Amino acid sequence: MSNEIKVRKYGFTLPAQAGMDDVVLDLARRWGADAFRDSDGTVLSDSITSLGYDIYSTLCLIRADQEWNRAHPEDNQQKYLYSTPQTARDVVMEIDILARYSPEQYRIDETHAYKKYWEVINRTTGEVVPVSDWDYADGIVTVRNCTRWHVYSVNFLVYQIWETTSMYNHLTNNWGDKPHQSGVDPRKQATREHLAMFLDKWLATHPDTDFVRFTSMAYQFPIITNPKHETLYQDWYGYLDCMSTQALDEFEAKKGYRLRPNDLVDDGYFNSTDRVPKKAYLDWIEFIHDFMVEWASQCVNQVHAAGKKAILFYCDHWIGTEPYKPRFQEIGYDGIIGPCINGREVRRIADVPGDLVKELRLYPYFFPVDLLDKPTFQAGGDPVADCRKYWMWIRRAMLRKMVHRIGYGGYLDLAVKFPDFIDYLEYQTKEFYGMCEHTDFTPVENAPFKVAILNAWGKDRSWGFDQSWPEGGITESLSGQPFDLMWINFDDLRNGLPDDVGVIINLGLARTSWSGGENWKDPNVVAAIRDFVDAGGGFLGILDPSACEHGGAFYQLWDILGVQKEVGLSNDCKKVIPTDVTEGHFIAEDFNGLAPALGKHVQRIYPGLESTTIIAKDSEGSVTIAANPFGRGRGVYLAGFQLGAEQNRLLQRAIWYAAGKEDQMPRRWFSANLHTEIAAYPETGKYIVINNANEPQTTVITDGNGMEHTVRLESNASRWFDFAGNELA
Amino acid sequence: MSNEIKVRKYGFTLPAQAGMDDVVLDLARRWGADAFRDSDGTVLSDSITSLGYDIYSTLCLIRADQEWNRAHPEDNQQKYLYSTPQTARDVVMEIDILARYSPEQYRIDETHAYKKYWEVINRTTGEVVPVSDWDYADGIVTVRNCTRWHVYSVNFLVYQIWETTSMYNHLTNNWGDKPHQSGVDPRKQATREHLAMFLDKWLATHPDTDFVRFTSMAYQFPIITNPKHETLYQDWYGYLDCMSTQALDEFEAKKGYRLRPNDLVDDGYFNSTDRVPKKAYLDWIEFIHDFMVEWASQCVNQVHAAGKKAILFYCDHWIGTEPYKPRFQEIGYDGIIGPCINGREVRRIADVPGDLVKELRLYPYFFPVDLLDKPTFQAGGDPVADCRKYWMWIRRAMLRKMVHRIGYGGYLDLAVKFPDFIDYLEYQTKEFYGMCEHTDFTPVENAPFKVAILNAWGKDRSWGFDQSWPEGGITESLSGQPFDLMWINFDDLRNGLPDDVGVIINLGLARTSWSGGENWKDPNVVAAIRDFVDAGGGFLGILDPSACEHGGAFYQLWDILGVQKEVGLSNDCKKVIPTDVTEGHFIAEDFNGLAPALGKHVQRIYPGLESTTIIAKDSEGSVTIAANPFGRGRGVYLAGFQLGAEQNRLLQRAIWYAAGKEDQMPRRWFSANLHTEIAAYPETGKYIVINNANEPQTTVITDGNGMEHTVRLESNASRWFDFAGNELA
Repeated sequence: MSNEIKVRKYGFTLPAQAGMDDVVLDLARRWGADAFRDSDGTVLSDSITSLGYDIYSTLCLIRADQEWNRAHPEDNQQKYLYSTPQTARDVVMEIDILARYSPEQYRIDETHAYKKYWEVINRTTGEVVPVSDWDYADGIVTVRNCTRWHVYSVNFLVYQIWETTSMYNHLTNNWGDKPHQSGVDPRKQATREHLAMFLDKWLATHPDTDFVRFTSMAYQFPIITNPKHETLYQDWYGYLDCMSTQALDEFEAKKGYRLRPNDLVDDGYFNSTDRVPKKAYLDWIEFIHDFMVEWASQCVNQVHAAGKKAILFYCDHWIGTEPYKPRFQEIGYDGIIGPCINGREVRRIADVPGDLVKELRLYPYFFPVDLLDKPTFQAGGDPVADCRKYWMWIRRAMLRKMVHRIGYGGYLDLAVKFPDFIDYLEYQTKEFYGMCEHTDFTPVENAPFKVAILNAWGKDRSWGFDQSWPEGGITESLSGQPFDLMWINFDDLRNGLPDDVGVIINLGLARTSWSGGENWKDPNVVAAIRDFVDAGGGFLGILDPSACEHGGAFYQLWDILGVQKEVGLSNDCKKVIPTDVTEGHFIAEDFNGLAPALGKHVQRIYPGLESTTIIAKDSEGSVTIAANPFGRGRGVYLAGFQLGAEQNRLLQRAIWYAAGKEDQMPRRWFSANLHTEIAAYPETGKYIVINNANEPQTTVITDGNGMEHTVRLESNASRWFDFAGNELA
Repeated sequence: MSNEIKVRKYGFTLPAQAGMDDVVLDLARRWGADAFRDSDGTVLSDSITSLGYDIYSTLCLIRADQEWNRAHPEDNQQKYLYSTPQTARDVVMEIDILARYSPEQYRIDETHAYKKYWEVINRTTGEVVPVSDWDYADGIVTVRNCTRWHVYSVNFLVYQIWETTSMYNHLTNNWGDKPHQSGVDPRKQATREHLAMFLDKWLATHPDTDFVRFTSMAYQFPIITNPKHETLYQDWYGYLDCMSTQALDEFEAKKGYRLRPNDLVDDGYFNSTDRVPKKAYLDWIEFIHDFMVEWASQCVNQVHAAGKKAILFYCDHWIGTEPYKPRFQEIGYDGIIGPCINGREVRRIADVPGDLVKELRLYPYFFPVDLLDKPTFQAGGDPVADCRKYWMWIRRAMLRKMVHRIGYGGYLDLAVKFPDFIDYLEYQTKEFYGMCEHTDFTPVENAPFKVAILNAWGKDRSWGFDQSWPEGGITESLSGQPFDLMWINFDDLRNGLPDDVGVIINLGLARTSWSGGENWKDPNVVAAIRDFVDAGGGFLGILDPSACEHGGAFYQLWDILGVQKEVGLSNDCKKVIPTDVTEGHFIAEDFNGLAPALGKHVQRIYPGLESTTIIAKDSEGSVTIAANPFGRGRGVYLAGFQLGAEQNRLLQRAIWYAAGKEDQMPRRWFSANLHTEIAAYPETGKYIVINNANEPQTTVITDGNGMEHTVRLESNASRWFDFAGNELA
């Protein structure tokens, strides 16, 4: 490996595999790799590690020593589950508590006093059944003195006997008889001491390793499966798999109150991130984070003491590390790596505070099937089409916030069977290196105001939307838009916004954490936003903004948004304000008379004020896009969103308009053709024009001096220019 | 008029008009009329009243003597309104309280102490503003010590200076300069005494009148208009226009607590019937009903003393009479008349308990425009098409419950300009008389079980759905189905169902009175239904049945329905039960592979149990029709409904199936062609087959002995047979 590569600020991590040395070296040259990694299920041979490339070695301490784990089942990880709600047909009812769960994944905790740690709940009344009214034996809870026709379920503790990542990889790859791995909990003192010793020994026996790639620390986000190995529950942010009776007792000592099992079971919702978080759950997150900062710091110190660098894989067992919380910085990681299939996942890594090497592990993973179990690297798969589709969203997001490295994972022997994929990565890596060099990781020029996304989680759950819901599409679009984004929660709002916020976005379905639920009943919340908008700010509401039935209104900020939702309680209140569509509005300028599809949008939206401007309606007359003046500011409403070029532009226009700065949008660094986008870097004096479409496009761009230039781009292509307009290599 | 007509049990009421004697007589013969009536805006001449026909005279006491009303503005009717919610931009805010309301309809009550009777409310906090912080003068309430950015509005008393029916007819007919009539409140002693004297005098001066057609008593259902005469609020069941300071004080004396203005204003929802009623509002209804029973009885006694009969027009000022409450019978009316545009309105009259003459005033009303302001009896109108469309729904409902009379209202001089309409009424009246004679008002044969419709109102609001919402379509369909229906509320359910109920239907959107809202948190409610279904009953849920977030479930009766709704809080809870559609289900037998359209149906419905049978899904995979066993009974779910022949049959099948008696459906009195229906009358030994379609139809009917016969019907036609199968004239 040349020194030239060693001094680059950027790089590529190649998943190598023993026995493929020639292929590995050839691909390393073609793709410009500077590092090799192993993956779950692959190893690097000595012949590869000795080639002079950086070596990234994956290490998951809590399942690294299965011998220890098997010998210490009492330190296996634990969690609370709940039994299938069951309707009492008689005064005595037997509940097979594990029935809905995989017995391969979980074992009922029969070690600890279940009358202390479990709860039987009458879900119809919400009451906890007295412990004298139930008993447990052989997997069955027998409840006595049931009220007939009430619904009961049991919150009970289990050991997780099949560690989640091991299970996922095993099932995805049909590993058959390969042994199931378990995980242990470093909160347990003996295990903690063992893991420290194990890590030291591991470091000593891996002299070729430059970077320890922790995949990840201790606690996996929850994936709960049923006996058919189907996923019953999955929450990338869930704090369920960090439980133990010891943790419960320590929580009580530290926080001054004891968690009830239902504080975690949450009536079966398991505190899904879509739920407005309750105080007990937030306290629990903080409690786990405190432990993790302390334990992860110790691990990182050991790595550093061995002269190596420590990288966090921000996925799998990332729970507790909380890269967006301030104390994450205390851990001392040298870098952070995230899996990345879209722009949101670019930004989730790229926006992490701190001076870290940031790397994306791109998709498709070199597995036979993808995350949705569709064929990838096998007959019927088309990894190039997949990769290009992802890259179109990833590239535009990177242009807003660069990362230092990209890479892949999985089995190289699968990937090399697809030569067009090998070729495509050559193109992709070159394009990435060009972006690194031309941007030099300096800031992109964005709109001259900040955009704050308001929800019940704020910064801690930056970019944290599920792909399949409209909220995910909106933030995906935003990940590549020319706006400085910040994520705020309702307390941030109560404590005062920074001066440079131009637009607040609230997006989400009613009653979810994303919309905000009961927070909207707080007079300080609505007053803060009214004050902000009155002074010239913008409020962009998408789906069910400020939704909470209270005081005769459902959307609390109807006076800013100009619209209201009919939920069926005010059919008798007639909607007399005309819903005529205003033609030629700034937000609608790219519509060509037809508003873009907004997916499964919110319905029964009507204008609530004479001042409301209706920009679009659906076929049934429900308002889909509206704007309204409020003091010196503006409200804008969008009833939904779906991913697409037209919708990207619509959202862009909506934000500029909400900010009251729509005249500035096309003046600098604007590309007229909405299939194309532009990004400029004042510190390097360069700009790029990209074509997101699968067909060639011609666009007229406006540069930083307001001068227009025509640019033609091949399908999916990009072109770099300096500020004088000269094309760069 | 012949004696033959006089002894009929049925009849037709013709809206006569002075100066048209020959036309009136000719039409009376053609339409088989036995009675003439006047209408608002028309009078009968002596030459008409002396023809020997029964004379129905409309009388609306509270606006009959405008001279008295003008002289007693303090006895004008009153109500509470609320000012447009207004966001405080400063510590002092002026609120133009009448701004959103028509100054022609309302005058602010400046007579009574407004600090006693009004409320200024901070709608953001819900707090009542201290009376020391506001004052009123010249239409403006000035609020001091406002919290900036909180929303305020004023609940204030007005006099209604333009009586609602007068206003409606005036505006609909463009009466221009014709004086506005006001109404008075018989609760006021002087007015009450005057109205009694007026009624006696009126009776004495109307010797030709046989039936006093009260249109209606004192209190109109609310129609609140804005300065542009647009309707802001309308609730056919609303108890708003029965207010006075005296009533408030008397309520306090009788009920032991004082109503707050907001108990009636209800944060601007005005206790819309779609809202789950609160105790204060139910108390208020009962209080007004008590008064009305007493006062209306007195009026009826006066009519009877004059040797005439008293008829209630069950519309307009019907509030307080409550035909479905037991004390209605104490009033002593001889008959009841309702406007009728569909099957629900047939049943709303036909199902009223008691031995009353029941009459329908059919549509189209002889006015230039219809209820939706579309042309009727003028150029561009097609009254025959309108009338036929209504009749198709009315006829099938009548066949389930007959009324004694039909009739029309309005201006005969408009109607006679449409000769095809005159012809059509000749056909329609003949068909109606045939139904009267062949049924002889004896019971129709229905399914051998009762169907109870459960909502928060029960019997008092029988057939009380708005046309424009899916609930209206469902009950419209039911109005002509072969089921004995009863309407029950949650207290009825708590107190125990009658033994012969076979199916309970709960239909409505979440949180409305129709679905039931918080009632579903009551363990006694869910237990009662589980007990009922377990014992073999059926539960048919439509739209959002048993919807109320509680104990980890949104549809509380998921265990009966077999489905659950994803409202955005459990995206992380994966839905693993397959949604494969079961082919060939009884409910789907008429689908021909394609489930009928269900209108704006509820979405994100997924199966919650392995036992759930999916009968249909929408294009996005959301379940639209499902069934599930529960004990010896069944649950059935429908995500929506829209009016149509296929949907009628679907609903019919769903009910038979829920009852567990689906094998009986086609065995007796069944018509295979779903555009046709059949009704049989065991006591007269006759049956009818009707064609609801605008095209000829052939059907195979099954008679009471299980024998099949082929019947062909012209478009929209009906044919009568005796039980031996002989066609009747």
